[in-house]
Amino acid sequence: MSASPPAPLPTVRTVSDLRAQVAAWRRDGLRIGFVPTMGALHEGHLSLVRLAGTRADRVVASVFVNPTQFGPNEDFDAYPRDEARDAGLLAGAGCALLFAPSVGEMYPPGASTTVTVAGVSEPLDGQARPGHFAGVATVVTKLLNQCQPDVAVFGEKDFQQLAVIRRLVRDLDIPVEIVGGPTARADDGLALSSRNAYLTEAERPVAAKLNAALREVLTKVRAGEPVEAAEQAAVAALLAAGFRQVDYVEARVPDTLERVGPGPANGPVRVLGAAHLGRTRLIDNIGD
Amino acid sequence: MSASPPAPLPTVRTVSDLRAQVAAWRRDGLRIGFVPTMGALHEGHLSLVRLAGTRADRVVASVFVNPTQFGPNEDFDAYPRDEARDAGLLAGAGCALLFAPSVGEMYPPGASTTVTVAGVSEPLDGQARPGHFAGVATVVTKLLNQCQPDVAVFGEKDFQQLAVIRRLVRDLDIPVEIVGGPTARADDGLALSSRNAYLTEAERPVAAKLNAALREVLTKVRAGEPVEAAEQAAVAALLAAGFRQVDYVEARVPDTLERVGPGPANGPVRVLGAAHLGRTRLIDNIGD
Repeated sequence: MSASPPAPLPTVRTVSDLRAQVAAWRRDGLRIGFVPTMGALHEGHLSLVRLAGTRADRVVASVFVNPTQFGPNEDFDAYPRDEARDAGLLAGAGCALLFAPSVGEMYPPGASTTVTVAGVSEPLDGQARPGHFAGVATVVTKLLNQCQPDVAVFGEKDFQQLAVIRRLVRDLDIPVEIVGGPTARADDGLALSSRNAYLTEAERPVAAKLNAALREVLTKVRAGEPVEAAEQAAVAALLAAGFRQVDYVEARVPDTLERVGPGPANGPVRVLGAAHLGRTRLIDNIGD
Repeated sequence: MSASPPAPLPTVRTVSDLRAQVAAWRRDGLRIGFVPTMGALHEGHLSLVRLAGTRADRVVASVFVNPTQFGPNEDFDAYPRDEARDAGLLAGAGCALLFAPSVGEMYPPGASTTVTVAGVSEPLDGQARPGHFAGVATVVTKLLNQCQPDVAVFGEKDFQQLAVIRRLVRDLDIPVEIVGGPTARADDGLALSSRNAYLTEAERPVAAKLNAALREVLTKVRAGEPVEAAEQAAVAALLAAGFRQVDYVEARVPDTLERVGPGPANGPVRVLGAAHLGRTRLIDNIGD
């Protein structure tokens, strides 16, 4: 039995309209959840919206492809955009309001403030994508201050991003609870990602080997094998499988993203990887 | 006729206690004003508290000597601290709550996020005190998020700081109104400052010449004289009067702190100066 088609999703494009709606809900004593996205939504995003719905009375989602978190040679222009489709999916997942600002609304002339997070944003994608996390930290600070939700949900798929956001929310005393949502995956283990749309038919089965390689590292590290050898074997396996370039495969301490020692790991471990398959850069991570 | 002595000022030392009091006031529909200070209060600070009182139902003041805005060779350790005196003065000016956190409450282990403001924070004190405005921008972002006031008042005495704060509040969408309060002065024009306490008896009359020199520049610029010559004459006058070093005397556009053109200035002008007299660094600014 199929559900009836959802009503069109109320959409605001200015901070002022966003705040007016949130303020009206607050006057009614309602709790606000928030799911920031860059659109091109898939089941992973929708699971975050549903998770926010279990923690709040009204869920706001934003769709904003943030130019400041893309490097000069990255895919800002090519990034998939389809607001009507996104709005329909959000409504179906229980979202109550879409915030879809323009670049000009987010960065008016003269904007010149940047939020940077030392430590947790420096390794991994911080090395591979210079400036990326400053762009993320700044836009997330803005979005949280614009919406002022009680709770905001971010995907564990972008595990380092989640760690950066947890850190900046604590450090800047932003009054919001940050919740991480588990990574949604295809049957073969591939993490759902808007960038999977770039994969060719031939690349698609190869893409799943990133997740398999990370699992292999986690299994070995848990079995007491040396960390660095496990990481290097994974890199070799990915290159052999057809990945063009591996930015990193590394076992890290989940909260701080510091390296785990060279010997057997005792505490919690997260294995993170980033690799290029054709023109697509894929990232994934797993833990236990 | 003297007023009766004010009751002891309620004081909180944790963000959690601060928020509990502010939330209680909010439940009663009250509007919150906030005046962040580094203590060592004088009439200038108290005028800001009274100004906040005209814009809000309850005024919170913070006293926190923020280590991250002092350079390694600056006066963090020597900066005057007398909380009991400050609390009495605040109560007398109508302040309802003092927030006096420890350094550990403000910067717990692991804190690693910095707010930087390009442009307006770069010239003048941005050159003379590297890192100063990043320290200011970060702590003010924290304080505003901790207190969540409707309105926050900062002194025009620290004119560049006020411009940096206005910029970051806009850029990070912090939901607060920023109000500048006019500079309080001694009869001879010396801007009131906690650092005036460092002046010797012999230096005190010389200190007032900083304000006089800035006024002279403003008068000349308004009369159509070349800006740079007016600035240079002021620097020479200050050195001749006994100042040890002049960091800058410059006419700037008030909002952006960009240079005014070399010819006659048409738009608004602010003249800012910083100079060292003995072991005291003084700053001042005037406009029209």
